[in-house]
Amino acid sequence: MPVPAPDISASRLWSRLMVMAGIGTIAGGGVNRQALSAEDRAAMAQLIGWGRARGLVPAFDVAGNLFLRLEGRDPAALPVLIGSHLDSQPTGGRFDGCYGVLAAFEAIETLLDAGLVPQAPLVLVAWMNEEGSRFAPGMMGSEVFAGRRALAEIEAVTDAGEITVGAALADLRAAFPEVPVIAAGFPLAAYLEAHIEQADLLERAGREIGIVTGIQGKKTWDVTLSGTEAHAGTEPMARRHDAVQAFARVALAMQGAALAAGEAIRFTIGRVIVRPNAPSVVPAEVVFRIDLRHPDNTVLDATAAALEAAGRAGAAPCRIAFRPMVDAPANDFDPGLRAAIAASAARRGFGAMDVLSAAGHDARHLAAVSRAAMIFVPCRGGVSHHPDEWLEPDHAAKGAQVLCDVAAGLCNAEQPDGKENDDE
Amino acid sequence: MPVPAPDISASRLWSRLMVMAGIGTIAGGGVNRQALSAEDRAAMAQLIGWGRARGLVPAFDVAGNLFLRLEGRDPAALPVLIGSHLDSQPTGGRFDGCYGVLAAFEAIETLLDAGLVPQAPLVLVAWMNEEGSRFAPGMMGSEVFAGRRALAEIEAVTDAGEITVGAALADLRAAFPEVPVIAAGFPLAAYLEAHIEQADLLERAGREIGIVTGIQGKKTWDVTLSGTEAHAGTEPMARRHDAVQAFARVALAMQGAALAAGEAIRFTIGRVIVRPNAPSVVPAEVVFRIDLRHPDNTVLDATAAALEAAGRAGAAPCRIAFRPMVDAPANDFDPGLRAAIAASAARRGFGAMDVLSAAGHDARHLAAVSRAAMIFVPCRGGVSHHPDEWLEPDHAAKGAQVLCDVAAGLCNAEQPDGKENDDE
Repeated sequence: MPVPAPDISASRLWSRLMVMAGIGTIAGGGVNRQALSAEDRAAMAQLIGWGRARGLVPAFDVAGNLFLRLEGRDPAALPVLIGSHLDSQPTGGRFDGCYGVLAAFEAIETLLDAGLVPQAPLVLVAWMNEEGSRFAPGMMGSEVFAGRRALAEIEAVTDAGEITVGAALADLRAAFPEVPVIAAGFPLAAYLEAHIEQADLLERAGREIGIVTGIQGKKTWDVTLSGTEAHAGTEPMARRHDAVQAFARVALAMQGAALAAGEAIRFTIGRVIVRPNAPSVVPAEVVFRIDLRHPDNTVLDATAAALEAAGRAGAAPCRIAFRPMVDAPANDFDPGLRAAIAASAARRGFGAMDVLSAAGHDARHLAAVSRAAMIFVPCRGGVSHHPDEWLEPDHAAKGAQVLCDVAAGLCNAEQPDGKENDDE
Repeated sequence: MPVPAPDISASRLWSRLMVMAGIGTIAGGGVNRQALSAEDRAAMAQLIGWGRARGLVPAFDVAGNLFLRLEGRDPAALPVLIGSHLDSQPTGGRFDGCYGVLAAFEAIETLLDAGLVPQAPLVLVAWMNEEGSRFAPGMMGSEVFAGRRALAEIEAVTDAGEITVGAALADLRAAFPEVPVIAAGFPLAAYLEAHIEQADLLERAGREIGIVTGIQGKKTWDVTLSGTEAHAGTEPMARRHDAVQAFARVALAMQGAALAAGEAIRFTIGRVIVRPNAPSVVPAEVVFRIDLRHPDNTVLDATAAALEAAGRAGAAPCRIAFRPMVDAPANDFDPGLRAAIAASAARRGFGAMDVLSAAGHDARHLAAVSRAAMIFVPCRGGVSHHPDEWLEPDHAAKGAQVLCDVAAGLCNAEQPDGKENDDE
């Protein structure tokens, strides 16, 4: 018989969050722990160490996803997977990703402390490169796990220093020679991910637990504007094919097209690369990244088309080319899991509400191959991807508690037969 | 008695140009020989070696300007300085700067071959960092030489890798321990610089020699737009302080203000740096460089004010700050030297015409402390700052010939007394 899940340790969870915040710390108290960097590997080493101390078995898959496995009474049962990611943006906060990993670790420790053994294996995961800032696009690890992207494709991606993901993965494996490497992807009973909201709906509503209904759709492109390099002091204005001026026209026209889609649209040009980027040279090329999101796939598709049209109309006399990167339609999370989250929150007396995730998460890809759901906790002012990102310790604990409750139920954690009888 | 200057060697000049084109070669046949880089030092080493073989005495000044001195019969006479620069843009051509240095070297060799000795010292110069792409702004060496900028000020400038000019100058001196270092700036009789036109006025007019009347005025600024970093998937559009969108508005508004100044204006945003420049982050900051030029100082000043006003009007909700870099008014070259150039071209039967320099040159700063002039030669299609930059060998030779003729006259080159008598 399943027993009610025990209480997690708020202080232990918080102290672990602070230890991880010390790995890759940057000015302002944030972290720079980009995917497969030395700092990211240091965070993995810390997690593996904690796991080993509790008897959890580490493994990497070929895509660099890190697993810590708590064996079940029935090792052949489909495992329950819980976790998030340890990598960060270059100027990231302390909680984005890391919180979901450590909440999962706290859930497992809580079951262990209570002497509970799951029937199905309970596996913690830290996904490789959720953020996509060093290697674009993000969520590479979960995409490969879910079979949505080929391993060879992500291995060929390079960072700004021309290092490939393949080379960085080899470095990762070399750094952990004692950790076995398994194939990517295995069948799951369910996937659960806790995460800071990265928006302020929960905070403004005064709720502690977000039952995530789904994730808005997202499309990204790399756009290249090609002009002609020329001398800034001599080339007459009328003869120029100035890629930066073309960028200014196109960026404004796209912004207009995006705003026409209404309040729910999110349109961002976050990365711009100018070539040759020299002060006295009329620029020959601008490559920029579009990030477009909307919860309704119909609106998303129509806005995407409008952006491309705006780009083509504004580019002349430069040429424009679009290279689609991410095309992730909006998705809904599993109703049964959402009900289990709501039930835990209600039983514990935590304020909960349905929220849509505006940010993308690895759970998006897991939802395609498994039952999946997410638990959000508030973050102050909705600020994320910034050193000011803040999660109240009380909210951290409540989210981890709900995760523990739901995971324990999913993997049917209970006292071993003998012990359970002793308790009765 | 001065004798007519002898004929230069077109083939020797061309072969030297091709040797220099082999130092720092990039795809397409251009060069990347940015100021004080290893490639720039290699070019200097080549020039010093050629000079030593002809008995010229090398010296650096404290600002990294390189001199090769041919002593005069009267070592106390004010020297005649001839030259240009060896550094290039990151994707530069083979002739910009390098041509003027090697034309000067050819002029000196021609006098030596003919057994002529100048009365006044004839000194070749290769100015440090004319281009300003690695360390901004350019023309640092000639500015320090002419007392228009303090040495300490340029030494503090850093490149993208946070290396200071001061450190790069120390590396330069360490690479040439046998070359003496002298103070910056000494009195001159005259300064002459040959250079490719970097425009197509000569080509379109079918002329071979440009008698440069002056250089248009130039102003540059670094402009910083400050917004607020936020999550690209969550932050509502209406709440964003998106620095890239502010940049697009400001860049277009400035372009409009510049075009209102008429056909002679040159307005360029050649360098743009976005922070944090991450795909999923609403950008917090854009720093960009404005390069503005016009031959009329009144129009230049009025347009500069209009650009700043356009920037302030378009920046909201971001903040904008302007940091002036270069403020070089238009200048005229010496009428006597221009007449000497015209006389040489006429005597030689070369087609010559007056031209205004749209590009800036070190001669701008020398004109403030000495008689100064420039000789332009055509470059194909006016293309410069690009691997396609091309100078016809015949035009290279004609420009060097005029430089040799005028320089020989200025330094009063003649046969030593005894030899002259022998020849009679």
